[in-house]
Amino acid sequence: MRNAYQEQLDRLANGLADMCNLVAEALDNATRALLRADLRLAEQVITDDARIDDLRTAAEEQAFTLLVRQAPVATDLRIVVSGLHAAGDIERMGDLALHIAEAARRRHPDLVMPAEVAPYLAEMGRVGSALARKVGEVIRTRDLERASQIETDDDAMDDLHRHLLTMLLNPTWPHGIGPAVDITLIGRFYERYADHAVALAHRVVYVITGRMPDPISA
Amino acid sequence: MRNAYQEQLDRLANGLADMCNLVAEALDNATRALLRADLRLAEQVITDDARIDDLRTAAEEQAFTLLVRQAPVATDLRIVVSGLHAAGDIERMGDLALHIAEAARRRHPDLVMPAEVAPYLAEMGRVGSALARKVGEVIRTRDLERASQIETDDDAMDDLHRHLLTMLLNPTWPHGIGPAVDITLIGRFYERYADHAVALAHRVVYVITGRMPDPISA
Repeated sequence: MRNAYQEQLDRLANGLADMCNLVAEALDNATRALLRADLRLAEQVITDDARIDDLRTAAEEQAFTLLVRQAPVATDLRIVVSGLHAAGDIERMGDLALHIAEAARRRHPDLVMPAEVAPYLAEMGRVGSALARKVGEVIRTRDLERASQIETDDDAMDDLHRHLLTMLLNPTWPHGIGPAVDITLIGRFYERYADHAVALAHRVVYVITGRMPDPISA
Repeated sequence: MRNAYQEQLDRLANGLADMCNLVAEALDNATRALLRADLRLAEQVITDDARIDDLRTAAEEQAFTLLVRQAPVATDLRIVVSGLHAAGDIERMGDLALHIAEAARRRHPDLVMPAEVAPYLAEMGRVGSALARKVGEVIRTRDLERASQIETDDDAMDDLHRHLLTMLLNPTWPHGIGPAVDITLIGRFYERYADHAVALAHRVVYVITGRMPDPISA
């Protein structure tokens, strides 16, 4: 019985880690769609998001079943409760990738991003999806050290986001208000995506140590 | 024993409802601070947010204790699990009010919002805080009909948000890119605030009926 129970806990964690890989892929595709004005790829991200929503529901049901059947306590209960929160965070990351894909679709077939902005968005996409993959590994392995690194990785995203806003607010910005408003929102989507990865890493720290790191708020 | 247990469940719900009132007040104050360039009020919202964060932690601990001591099932388990999610949503609403207050502080002592924008933001503030108060009542009373209304109330927020963006993107917008970028983000904060209220209402529907309404994604 104990084995079946441990297996259920592992299955929950592995399912969440798989979700992390899916939202990483979604962000990579959304970024590519945005930078290449690739309508087909944007549509694919939008369609694939339903799968992530389903996995969230499945993870919540698994967690719920574990609570009912096993009434876990201590670390096991922290795993299950954190799993419930994690499923929500990861689904939200998928939604944010979806929003970036929607922005790409809205802009199509206009030429892509202003040339000076594109490298920043490309880098935000890279940093974001790397964070998602890393946090997936952290959920699978419960590696405290790697979980703690994720906060530092997120600093890179914050820097990129600040640079992006500085560029938009530069008096010499030549592309007008429409693109500025668009890029403001897109930048916010990347930044929030990374914030959710940090929140996930905090939950893993909580599972291992029983204590939450200081709350983030962004 | 059963009575103490029911009392704990009620205390959890009432605590969450109280949090809803606090984040409603935070949004009202943040909106006022923004529209009147009231630095003192902005600072107050920023300081008060720590209290909301503490209440979230307290609600999560209550839920955790309930899971350990009572191992609830069926509706009671749904109440506790939804309470965990709700605490996160409400805290996030507080963070979004905080972000609006921070925007007000950043703008100070510049003159407030462009005159044509101010009424929209005032109305978004009113709609948002009314949603928060209503969802607090819904959490307290588990009134299915009122919970279902909240989605409709949120449509008003979406309309306001669309109008706001249209105004920014109008070729005759005379205030330049800085305010446009600022107002884009502020508008997004109000919209997300309302989305969380809808998510909370969905959770109440789930507690009552055992089924989630269709997922929102915004």
